[in-house]
Amino acid sequence: MGNEEKHLRRIAAKKAKLEAAEKAAAKAAAEQLKLDEKYMKEALRQAKKAYALKEVPIGCVLVDNETGKVLSRGYNRRNTDHLALGHAEITVIKRGCKKLNDWRLDHCTLYVTLEPCQMCAGAIVQARVPRVVIGAMNAKAGCAGSIFNLLEEPKFNHRCEVVRGVLGEECSEMMSEFFKELRENRG
Amino acid sequence: MGNEEKHLRRIAAKKAKLEAAEKAAAKAAAEQLKLDEKYMKEALRQAKKAYALKEVPIGCVLVDNETGKVLSRGYNRRNTDHLALGHAEITVIKRGCKKLNDWRLDHCTLYVTLEPCQMCAGAIVQARVPRVVIGAMNAKAGCAGSIFNLLEEPKFNHRCEVVRGVLGEECSEMMSEFFKELRENRG
Repeated sequence: MGNEEKHLRRIAAKKAKLEAAEKAAAKAAAEQLKLDEKYMKEALRQAKKAYALKEVPIGCVLVDNETGKVLSRGYNRRNTDHLALGHAEITVIKRGCKKLNDWRLDHCTLYVTLEPCQMCAGAIVQARVPRVVIGAMNAKAGCAGSIFNLLEEPKFNHRCEVVRGVLGEECSEMMSEFFKELRENRG
Repeated sequence: MGNEEKHLRRIAAKKAKLEAAEKAAAKAAAEQLKLDEKYMKEALRQAKKAYALKEVPIGCVLVDNETGKVLSRGYNRRNTDHLALGHAEITVIKRGCKKLNDWRLDHCTLYVTLEPCQMCAGAIVQARVPRVVIGAMNAKAGCAGSIFNLLEEPKFNHRCEVVRGVLGEECSEMMSEFFKELRENRG
């Protein structure tokens, strides 16, 4: 085997290895997306509970990254409970801490149908949640990339990995439908 | 009376009026500061409760601007309650909402011994608190002027009036003492 042939074989072997790694990464990403969509559907089911109470339909679930178990569920109840802290994420963080008996949720993923506000983004950082999956963005008030990005702020002592747009259309449509109905009922 | 004399009298009258207004404003400011110090002392008493539990000593009270009554009190219990939401301000906002049966605390002043973090500043804005009085600033993590200023952010739908440094030294000393003790006990 000549030197040139050896060289070509090495290149071909490297290329095959790279392609296999890319394939594996794409497969892992597809599997992760499938999982993320599964939990976002759970968050959407929570949002529907808010809708039924005529609350802005936002739902949230907290998942243990190690076991894949849903640790807590919550939905917006601000008007129902007359409580500024009644947002879906706050409820989920509170219940998650209680379940784990720990203020650190540092091995969990939080799924929420709408981009968190400043308070909820702050609570996510305070609870050291490492990964946040968002359905629809909230251009007017969101603090995970829209107005501010409190989840990935280098000045804070904790930053999250953020995934945006998982079942984004479904999450966004639920919001549009809610506000359309609200306008019609007011009109 | 000549024209010049009339002119001088008018000037003197204007000056006297201005001085009286300035005096009244200074008196009102001094009275407000006295009131603010009174409520900050209440917040400091709450902070001492946290200190006794070996929690970072932060205390908070919520006052009704119309009646001057303290609506709710709270102190940091994050480690004790294993709760990321266990900050003084969150407790005070929760209790205030429950007391008033309203998520809007739009006629209240919140007194806190240390500059709020991102979560608590967010909760203050979400609860529409119009006035916030802060003892000591928190250069490393504060979100009411230090790292960010979420309380006076023009992009949000609500902004607070913020007063800083009321009994600032006392509030700051309590923090220093706490961390000094902590280092000594660790050493």
